[in-house]
Amino acid sequence: MSKTSTLYQHGTLALLVPGLLKGTTTMADFLKHGDTGIGTGEGLDGELVILDGKPYQVNSKGEVNIVNGDFTMPFANANWADYQPLATVENVKMADLSKQILELSRSANTFFSVKVQGTFTDVTTRAVAKSDVPYKTLSETAKQQSVFKRDTVEGTLLGYYSPELFNGAAVGGFHYHFMSDAHDFGGHVLGFAVDQAEVTIQQFDTLEQHLPVSDNDYMQHDFADDEIDKSIEESEK
Amino acid sequence: MSKTSTLYQHGTLALLVPGLLKGTTTMADFLKHGDTGIGTGEGLDGELVILDGKPYQVNSKGEVNIVNGDFTMPFANANWADYQPLATVENVKMADLSKQILELSRSANTFFSVKVQGTFTDVTTRAVAKSDVPYKTLSETAKQQSVFKRDTVEGTLLGYYSPELFNGAAVGGFHYHFMSDAHDFGGHVLGFAVDQAEVTIQQFDTLEQHLPVSDNDYMQHDFADDEIDKSIEESEK
Repeated sequence: MSKTSTLYQHGTLALLVPGLLKGTTTMADFLKHGDTGIGTGEGLDGELVILDGKPYQVNSKGEVNIVNGDFTMPFANANWADYQPLATVENVKMADLSKQILELSRSANTFFSVKVQGTFTDVTTRAVAKSDVPYKTLSETAKQQSVFKRDTVEGTLLGYYSPELFNGAAVGGFHYHFMSDAHDFGGHVLGFAVDQAEVTIQQFDTLEQHLPVSDNDYMQHDFADDEIDKSIEESEK
Repeated sequence: MSKTSTLYQHGTLALLVPGLLKGTTTMADFLKHGDTGIGTGEGLDGELVILDGKPYQVNSKGEVNIVNGDFTMPFANANWADYQPLATVENVKMADLSKQILELSRSANTFFSVKVQGTFTDVTTRAVAKSDVPYKTLSETAKQQSVFKRDTVEGTLLGYYSPELFNGAAVGGFHYHFMSDAHDFGGHVLGFAVDQAEVTIQQFDTLEQHLPVSDNDYMQHDFADDEIDKSIEESEK
């Protein structure tokens, strides 16, 4: 497989649902699989945006930090950046942008990433507060989220699209994180409009799905009664 | 990732459901990803069992052939064999064997393969007849299957287990193919009992999921109205 045609994912979205929030990979190891990505820390410790190999974390106070190599994560994905121009867009809201990207890319049945760089308005992000052992479920933990807003901000919207078939392993459809150019605002994106931005895209033909098989809590968990799809709909979409 | 801890999959089970049966990888390319595996040919041309790098096909007449490098497939998986002893079993039926393997391996939340070698009784297999363009759906094509039986046979049962979360991408739970030691009987397994056999297992921590992004029929198909889970339940379980 080509390095730039692969999306690497550690963990699954589904394992967050019952609260399997232990960090099962380190950032140092994770960055061997890409220079661009998103994720969350142990205990849902903030929202991660990796750009040009730099792992930014937006914590629940809205602060942006670069995390160390020993920072651990239960769930994250990464790719080696090779984005190609797709479109220049103006005055478009989140849902319409997603729709336009799907139409232009004709890639609904594979994994891809978009990097949207420019000026955004009405950006709403959230970051979850780190929880400790014993971890609560994703739905309960997500209630402890902080919400941040910016009227106008220049930055990078980093999005990942997964085919619906893989909902549960990943977020089916689009999943966006944001980082301002000034590195002072970002997080998991709840809403935005584009003022003016360049949309670039990187299509993947391979998902490299890594599972935390060394984590006994993960391996012995019975997922049968977890309402994975319902919880994802509530917490991540 | 370690070569032997990766399960490689080309295509998805879901794409077979609406009849996207074009061969989108060649056996020659596919064998770069493993020496052991299962799959099906273009148009559901028989049932494949790859053992020690040799790709055996059981066709709808029950004949066993070794296919050429230019044989193409819409869906198949492979691994580099590194099986470890799990158990010796006697007088156990299919469902009980699967249950025992899950209990002993404690690997329900990851992908793994089992190779069961010994003497089997009441083995029932099926092989689907190759269909041509325009391909019908999986359910319709599966009706054209031939069923084969052996009272007693020595051979290899090659099974793959996928976590339920990945049902649709793969077959959630166990999926078994069989090849007799005499290479004169095999196919997709519908039922069996073990007389006496050695069970070996290979656990994976990574699924390398490759999608046929160069196939326009696949990329432009709308899966929204395909009843993926229902069709898999009817045709593959």
